[in-house]
Amino acid sequence: MLKPPGGLAAAGPFSADERAAVYRAIHTRRDVRSQFLPEPLPPALVQRLLMAAHHAPSVGLMQPWNFILLRDAATRARLLAAFERANAAAAAQYEGPRRALYDSLKLQGIAEAPLNLCVTCDRSRGGPSVLGRAQTRDTDLYSTACAVQNLWLAARAEGVGVGWVSIVEEEDLREMLGLPPEVVPVAWLCLGYVAELHEGPELEARGWARRRALAPLVFEERWGAPAGPEFTEAPEG
Amino acid sequence: MLKPPGGLAAAGPFSADERAAVYRAIHTRRDVRSQFLPEPLPPALVQRLLMAAHHAPSVGLMQPWNFILLRDAATRARLLAAFERANAAAAAQYEGPRRALYDSLKLQGIAEAPLNLCVTCDRSRGGPSVLGRAQTRDTDLYSTACAVQNLWLAARAEGVGVGWVSIVEEEDLREMLGLPPEVVPVAWLCLGYVAELHEGPELEARGWARRRALAPLVFEERWGAPAGPEFTEAPEG
Repeated sequence: MLKPPGGLAAAGPFSADERAAVYRAIHTRRDVRSQFLPEPLPPALVQRLLMAAHHAPSVGLMQPWNFILLRDAATRARLLAAFERANAAAAAQYEGPRRALYDSLKLQGIAEAPLNLCVTCDRSRGGPSVLGRAQTRDTDLYSTACAVQNLWLAARAEGVGVGWVSIVEEEDLREMLGLPPEVVPVAWLCLGYVAELHEGPELEARGWARRRALAPLVFEERWGAPAGPEFTEAPEG
Repeated sequence: MLKPPGGLAAAGPFSADERAAVYRAIHTRRDVRSQFLPEPLPPALVQRLLMAAHHAPSVGLMQPWNFILLRDAATRARLLAAFERANAAAAAQYEGPRRALYDSLKLQGIAEAPLNLCVTCDRSRGGPSVLGRAQTRDTDLYSTACAVQNLWLAARAEGVGVGWVSIVEEEDLREMLGLPPEVVPVAWLCLGYVAELHEGPELEARGWARRRALAPLVFEERWGAPAGPEFTEAPEG
């Protein structure tokens, strides 16, 4: 007998080993710029990553995302040129030693990564009355970011590194990729196999910024009211 | 000898069992409204979930998020009233059978879930020149959504259901939680143990919307150019 689609199924906690695997993906995921290996990613693997992204939550089951695979060398050369223009403007925000440090950072792996991928959000999908989106229009963008994170964690488990390139003018991406006006390029990702990853955030290793402590970020009931230590001071799991 | 923070470590693919656990979390995660059990969540578990969120990627290592734990019954009653006001307005978008179906949907578990949690984005964190944010200001909001997705997947592995309530006026949340002007409430979540989950999206089970096929959402090189079948037509992994 066929079950009704979406019937209820037992869903308790995962086994200890399974839980550890999920946390391992979360805690060892990195934003990769320099560790990409040149081997192409097998299409079946790419498909698993896209399917992971496609299983993200979305407001009203809107599924506003599209995925544009970018492998052509000429396309990637244009992307790199767009990054370099934007990065020159971004670098001008900094002065002195901070500028020198900024200039020493590698902030993309566009040419080295065998696959680039643009994840977009079609803000018109599902029509004007998407369930759950009447009050906050940006929930479609949030859904798309959740799809990126699903892909990123699946990639970590597959031994694939992912880097998110955010230094680019949206107009450059729109023109290069032929995006319609209602489609927003949310994330431009570089993907490739990796054999090594940084043990912590690369920007911390390079002295640009530090991971914050969790405790001061957690409140109870109202903004600014510290949460009890039991929620924030146990050893990291 | 101490390693330098952020040094490189070996990072190949996970074992087949570990990979399967990560995909299991991704594919069986649900937006929960009705399956919450009343048992309170142990603080050490809540801490693991918050630490998972805190390990999300963030633009320039900005870490723009805060987490406001909401357990007080009076707070939750006010949240529920705010939801009901917003939901009455949202329902008015629909007519006829669609309106009847909308009215039959349960869209929140605010009172039943033992923990509510607001995840916010402080748009001023890290000062005016956050690395990677010069061109796209909204990358801080995307980072915060990635944190929500990390928490959601960790919760699935812990046997904890999560529901995202998006039917609320931002001004109501701001006033109730005392948010400063620069802080955006990105996600309001309901959390609690679950013993059962829907096998597919609940909105699909209830006939509101359907999961799309992946293939038409995947392009190559440019918007609208279909990707090869090898990227989209293998059996779901």
